[in-house]
Amino acid sequence: MACRASIRIKPDQQWRLPGWTEALVPSAVQEMLQAASGSDFVSFALGLPAPEFLPNAACITASRWILESTADALQYCPPLDALKERIVGLMRRRGLECQKQQIVITTGAQQALNLLCRLLIERGAPILVEEALYPGFRQAAEGCEARFVPVPSDPKTGIDVDAVRRLLAGGLQPALIYINGGAQNPMGISLNAEKKFALAELAARYQMPIIEDDAYGLLNFDDQPAPPVRTIDDQIACYVGSLSKILAPALRIGWIIAPEWATPKLATLKEGTDLDTCTLSQRIASRLFDIVDVNAQIDKLISAYRRRRDAMLQALEQEFGQFGKWERSNGGMFVWVRLADGMDTGKLLRDAIARERIAFLPGQAFSVSDEASLKNCLRLTYSNLAPDRIQEGIHRLAVLVKSHQKCGCRI
Amino acid sequence: MACRASIRIKPDQQWRLPGWTEALVPSAVQEMLQAASGSDFVSFALGLPAPEFLPNAACITASRWILESTADALQYCPPLDALKERIVGLMRRRGLECQKQQIVITTGAQQALNLLCRLLIERGAPILVEEALYPGFRQAAEGCEARFVPVPSDPKTGIDVDAVRRLLAGGLQPALIYINGGAQNPMGISLNAEKKFALAELAARYQMPIIEDDAYGLLNFDDQPAPPVRTIDDQIACYVGSLSKILAPALRIGWIIAPEWATPKLATLKEGTDLDTCTLSQRIASRLFDIVDVNAQIDKLISAYRRRRDAMLQALEQEFGQFGKWERSNGGMFVWVRLADGMDTGKLLRDAIARERIAFLPGQAFSVSDEASLKNCLRLTYSNLAPDRIQEGIHRLAVLVKSHQKCGCRI
Repeated sequence: MACRASIRIKPDQQWRLPGWTEALVPSAVQEMLQAASGSDFVSFALGLPAPEFLPNAACITASRWILESTADALQYCPPLDALKERIVGLMRRRGLECQKQQIVITTGAQQALNLLCRLLIERGAPILVEEALYPGFRQAAEGCEARFVPVPSDPKTGIDVDAVRRLLAGGLQPALIYINGGAQNPMGISLNAEKKFALAELAARYQMPIIEDDAYGLLNFDDQPAPPVRTIDDQIACYVGSLSKILAPALRIGWIIAPEWATPKLATLKEGTDLDTCTLSQRIASRLFDIVDVNAQIDKLISAYRRRRDAMLQALEQEFGQFGKWERSNGGMFVWVRLADGMDTGKLLRDAIARERIAFLPGQAFSVSDEASLKNCLRLTYSNLAPDRIQEGIHRLAVLVKSHQKCGCRI
Repeated sequence: MACRASIRIKPDQQWRLPGWTEALVPSAVQEMLQAASGSDFVSFALGLPAPEFLPNAACITASRWILESTADALQYCPPLDALKERIVGLMRRRGLECQKQQIVITTGAQQALNLLCRLLIERGAPILVEEALYPGFRQAAEGCEARFVPVPSDPKTGIDVDAVRRLLAGGLQPALIYINGGAQNPMGISLNAEKKFALAELAARYQMPIIEDDAYGLLNFDDQPAPPVRTIDDQIACYVGSLSKILAPALRIGWIIAPEWATPKLATLKEGTDLDTCTLSQRIASRLFDIVDVNAQIDKLISAYRRRRDAMLQALEQEFGQFGKWERSNGGMFVWVRLADGMDTGKLLRDAIARERIAFLPGQAFSVSDEASLKNCLRLTYSNLAPDRIQEGIHRLAVLVKSHQKCGCRI
């Protein structure tokens, strides 16, 4: 024992870890946001659904019914067929016809992205992504040591398909392209049908899988949203969906709709990852479709979020004027704002939290490189705030931005 | 559009995938087991808790309380502090003192293993494992392209520590050693304190992380089970625990207790994997500790499982005699049986399902190589069967084995 004690590993002595794990540190933005709380605080930072639409009461009914009527509701269980059927039905609203055997249920859309990255990315392989990228996808792909090849995006119409075409024609063989085509995060815009067809064509020509993240796709405000790429060719796109934005994030239910040959591979990979998506949650979610009119729920969310988006656009118009540029987001939860060149929204966030008691996500949080192109941008969430809170928060943000510009600070 | 259609990917045309993904196929055993159902069927195959002890009623109370008292119970939420506190308390029963900031809550023990493999294994690195290995760990490590270095196990005392010592002294630098030290799966035996100390000493000397899978550790039948390796040195072992075997698998709650420097890395890796363990499930599990006397629940399980183990040992004694060898498992859910050399329990399983309406897991399912050493072994679960069903099932198994031996088949 004395001998053992003498060779004890010192607490500050770490093991030999794979090189890529050096990137595994909590982000500075997240640490800042932990200070962001209090009733006078207005947070535009996180993509949270409106709390008043969370179906607590229906969940009580659903869980009681399940636990009373199903003796083995708490036992191990294969992925729930009944839930897959509900997903097939839900996808029709998105114009997407699919079959149960094409669906892999996941622990939220985040796990769907993670599994697809692990299936598709050979270590070190290049992947095509938008310049402003959902950070959860970046995390998933970083774990596979992907080499990010960013493609610019038009703030009105999304990813620059011509740039994609040039890269492919130039000989790049990406392991995949990641698109966030419906009410994109962070920009809040959607790809039109023409761009989706062009991407599908390129994907087929160059045998390039598409990861089509549609977590916000059901929250499109347009009368006739363009259907997913998956509807153009079911061998091209792996579609990713989620209940987090339309029912409840705490259920952690997402899914992949994959080409049928890929489904058993994804299911086996999933099994080795966490055995199964929370079984009780799958059962509750499946039952919720009996109790909640999910179509009406989505309609209600769209109408509320559209009002909140309008409130935010109006507040920006009134308060910001020449101090920034933004587009009319056509769905989801976000507006993307670009301030004057030279502004650093990462540094602005510190003052925003400390002085003005507001928060947002700085553009840099969506960047795959250390380039400056997103440094003067920020993402504002409107979904979980009443219009008067939005007005108040945008006012405080404008005061801050103006004060920084007036004193000539390079913030 | 005509052009697009003409270059459509054919349904049987697959993408370029990383080489290791070829191993992603559902196992033959699993496919066989899907045929294993019906009321006359006796399945010794899966590690299922006894259904009569699943806390359905308490779960109804817990979920109602949560959804009524917590307005944002269905919202996104960071890992639940209240649950970590409960885990700290639970671990005291195992003789393990730990702190909340050392805990990472995971989607079952399977995700804990997966995250640890991804953190610790450089692609292609050797790892030390027992010859008879929990298949879930094999799956997790295969995804990291680990090179398995199997170590023999004594059927009474577990992993051969001298063999580990020789390998390390010979210059092997494994990325980790995986042990399943408390009521091991598949053998049902536990490492004694002496072996645990010896392993901790080697781990410290050679800076070799230990993954200590203790999913069954709280179900030890001994009066004074040896405490986990983690209690010897908190910088050496990453301890893995689970609520699946003591409360309910469907909650999918597991955890890692890691050296404190590793916790933020694991939490960040976890976040990129599935954002968070089902939040509703975390809340329900945490509340269950208020409603259920978890210590009494564990005592009840131990007493029931001990009776079932005794019934299985007695039945084996009566029915099998000279046709096999087995050890007295000292906890958990399993007895490991070795038949005569030359028997192939993988092939036996087909007949078992089709002719005798019984099932088990063949030894080969726990093998990391194609070696023959486990081919004549099988794992039998006793936890979820009443003693008379165990007796009946072992009788049928014995009939089958004897018939195969009598006719001289090399099955």
